[in-house]
Amino acid sequence: MERSTGISLSKTGIEPLYKQLFDQIVARILSRAFPAGYRLPPTRLLATELRTNRNTVVRAYADLEAAGFVASTVGRGTFVALDVASAPPAADPAGGGLPWASLVASSSKLEVLRRSQRFSRGGPGRDVVNLTQMQPPADLLPDRLIRRCLDHVMQTQGSRALGYATPEGLPSLRQLIVADLARQGVPAHADDVLITTGSQQGIDLVARALIAPGDTFLVDAATYAGAINVFSLAGARLVPVASDAEGPEMAALERLTRVGAKGFYLMPNCNNPTGAEISAARRKSLVAWSRRACVPLIEDDYGSDLWLGETAPPPALRALNGDVIYMSTFSKKLVPALRIGFIVCPRKLRPVLVGIKRTVELGTSLLLQYVLAEFLERGYLRAHLNKTLPEYRLRRNALEQALMRHLPPGMKWRRPERGLVLWLPLPLGVDSESVFEEALRRGVLVGPSALYEVETRAERGLRLTFCAEPAERLALGARRLGEALRAMGKPQRRPREAVELQAV
Amino acid sequence: MERSTGISLSKTGIEPLYKQLFDQIVARILSRAFPAGYRLPPTRLLATELRTNRNTVVRAYADLEAAGFVASTVGRGTFVALDVASAPPAADPAGGGLPWASLVASSSKLEVLRRSQRFSRGGPGRDVVNLTQMQPPADLLPDRLIRRCLDHVMQTQGSRALGYATPEGLPSLRQLIVADLARQGVPAHADDVLITTGSQQGIDLVARALIAPGDTFLVDAATYAGAINVFSLAGARLVPVASDAEGPEMAALERLTRVGAKGFYLMPNCNNPTGAEISAARRKSLVAWSRRACVPLIEDDYGSDLWLGETAPPPALRALNGDVIYMSTFSKKLVPALRIGFIVCPRKLRPVLVGIKRTVELGTSLLLQYVLAEFLERGYLRAHLNKTLPEYRLRRNALEQALMRHLPPGMKWRRPERGLVLWLPLPLGVDSESVFEEALRRGVLVGPSALYEVETRAERGLRLTFCAEPAERLALGARRLGEALRAMGKPQRRPREAVELQAV
Repeated sequence: MERSTGISLSKTGIEPLYKQLFDQIVARILSRAFPAGYRLPPTRLLATELRTNRNTVVRAYADLEAAGFVASTVGRGTFVALDVASAPPAADPAGGGLPWASLVASSSKLEVLRRSQRFSRGGPGRDVVNLTQMQPPADLLPDRLIRRCLDHVMQTQGSRALGYATPEGLPSLRQLIVADLARQGVPAHADDVLITTGSQQGIDLVARALIAPGDTFLVDAATYAGAINVFSLAGARLVPVASDAEGPEMAALERLTRVGAKGFYLMPNCNNPTGAEISAARRKSLVAWSRRACVPLIEDDYGSDLWLGETAPPPALRALNGDVIYMSTFSKKLVPALRIGFIVCPRKLRPVLVGIKRTVELGTSLLLQYVLAEFLERGYLRAHLNKTLPEYRLRRNALEQALMRHLPPGMKWRRPERGLVLWLPLPLGVDSESVFEEALRRGVLVGPSALYEVETRAERGLRLTFCAEPAERLALGARRLGEALRAMGKPQRRPREAVELQAV
Repeated sequence: MERSTGISLSKTGIEPLYKQLFDQIVARILSRAFPAGYRLPPTRLLATELRTNRNTVVRAYADLEAAGFVASTVGRGTFVALDVASAPPAADPAGGGLPWASLVASSSKLEVLRRSQRFSRGGPGRDVVNLTQMQPPADLLPDRLIRRCLDHVMQTQGSRALGYATPEGLPSLRQLIVADLARQGVPAHADDVLITTGSQQGIDLVARALIAPGDTFLVDAATYAGAINVFSLAGARLVPVASDAEGPEMAALERLTRVGAKGFYLMPNCNNPTGAEISAARRKSLVAWSRRACVPLIEDDYGSDLWLGETAPPPALRALNGDVIYMSTFSKKLVPALRIGFIVCPRKLRPVLVGIKRTVELGTSLLLQYVLAEFLERGYLRAHLNKTLPEYRLRRNALEQALMRHLPPGMKWRRPERGLVLWLPLPLGVDSESVFEEALRRGVLVGPSALYEVETRAERGLRLTFCAEPAERLALGARRLGEALRAMGKPQRRPREAVELQAV
């Protein structure tokens, strides 16, 4: 006769009874209350003990066997199959004998790779307002819609969604992305689309396809820090291109025509960090220059769909020329944890990019590709934007109003009509890193222009994101930033740390 | 008075009524049956029409508003907020003006990157037995257990699981991996573990940390094709190291001591493709040599836990020395679509690897990291292995029995005791690529040694995986391979293609 198992089922819970039973038996196997070889009670007996239907027990036992926790033999019964005896903890071996500093390749020791870290620290033990995070806040992530899509994919695809993906990416997802791009006026064929694990990987694939160590690569004078890092890691010699009100200066580009650059990386709709948009006329000039100078344009549309104003952007560079490498991501407008971006490739470059993608990562998670395809198929993306864009507009307005109220007089900025950042130019002679430090001391984290520069001759300013904090926190951040800027206008006391250092 | 909506709810379906209502209204919005600005029926009215509780309608409307499909105004009603007017299809712009062949970096044009593609094609329109796939077959993927974990994570973490992850990876997952490694006798601290997007990314991160173009890197004479590709892409000069029955030949390594190699990539428990295991004594010699020669060892334990025999492998290299770079993956023993692997880093190398990881991909999907952590926490991994390993043993036995029956006499191989591949040495003078072609013509896809070699002096053979096909298909594949080998022993007719080419 079996002893009582101590199991009890809740008939009012939302979890089905067979799942409750499964979970409780697993817990007993893992705690070794049911050791390896232990015979589970016969289904009829356990059903009686639990006052439940015998089918509930049969279903739970079948699931336990399918999962590998138990094995059953006809006529003999069901036995615990899992041996959970744990190994003795292994001793940590000695290391430190190798000269790692000289083994590490010089490209991965670049100062630039450590810059992002230096400027991303928060204040110790303080409530810091974060004006540097560029990701949707938790309350604007569509967790319920994602869950519906996950449920549906697991129910309809099952284990078909759990294998390896092809390096190019799921055909249905590529087709849906093409349809979504058509809505935005960007022409593409599914055959030209390559799915990437976030657009960061997209930039990396392009860098590795084009850049040999020592090659010249062009970027905006103020540009995305993550792109500076990727191009530097590939060994590029980065040359910054200055901008005027319409976009990159054509005279500067003409001077660079004979340099033989391998590419020019741009964010035409919404530069990160400055938020600047390239005019329609300048886009045409850029495409013509690219063809003449034989320098590919890389168009990063990370802020696609994040339109806060009334007007659509000018036509994409990709809409003007099929040799433009266009890339975008679903991390900013939808969900970072999907880790899905894409490249629209020039046809001749595609096999090279696919080959590198296969080499460095095999393929992007098939499960997450199915989930995003389902999300797009159901029309959820556009509904989600319908909900999030008004909220981002509110936050932008809140930040602007607070800046107008709290900043020293005379400071001006351009109203952001796209994307999630506001660029605040600093008065001449004010050092962005010093503002960063002073602001952090007062409890607000901002992005200093030093972080976005290849050379330190770019316009000095601060990047302020308005997506990650609610309106009242944005106002608090603006007030603290105003205090920091006012304090820096006054004669400075010698910093306490410096005094202590001298005393040592 | 509202017209009838045509909506009907199924009270016997498994989907809750409010979800059915949500889906049906979304479908009508997307088909523009309910256009932008359309006023949804008042909740009370619709509830009456559908003969359901008013709360069901209220819940569905609330979800529609949260998702962004509708907006409601107190006292006025609920209106469709989504404008689904689609953009006119954009014309495909001309391209092809850029000289891509000269723009692409030479490292990404390597022949080696195209080899994998050349050997992965199946026969056209034929039922080909696949003895090259190394991934769990669909019926051995734990889709129901993964689904439970997904459900739990979305329910308990919600949008917290959807943001960006830190580059190092989720602390709880790293802790659980450390516990799992302890069971396998591999010592590690959570601080030393770096989560990677599959172990392919792990190899890539290590390559980029250590290799500058032109640097020497050591690999087994027969090694993982994906590693050859990654090291080549980084610009390495790859030097193959011959092996004897115990592992890499120490005399060969001693001769290479002064070359100044940046690393030696190894799979000590189960070489891919040969299945060879390095003896305990040779492991000690390797670690001592590594320290003396200042060449880091990279230990790829991709087949961890896939033990088909009775004995545990000798201690890991990492258990002998803390300077060993150890890496593994959950793609082979669990689920490829998780895209999760990890590196146990030497302490001094870790900041470099984390910096590169942040640069190239930001971080591995937070959602999938939570799901794997839940899977490990619940003890599902070990139950899953309990179920899959006996099946892999059956498949290995089926392949061996069929090979014994169908191969020409005199062919021998070593029984695989770990991992998912059987290595079949070919008789002297038999070319592995010709066998590949002849076998493919007869309907079986095998891995020729040419695919796993840096230089073509390695032992000639075929790699046969036994995981992806069921027993009867493995037997069919072995029979076809036997026919191909016998046919190659006979004088060959001139191939038909060659005749046709001459006729042109």
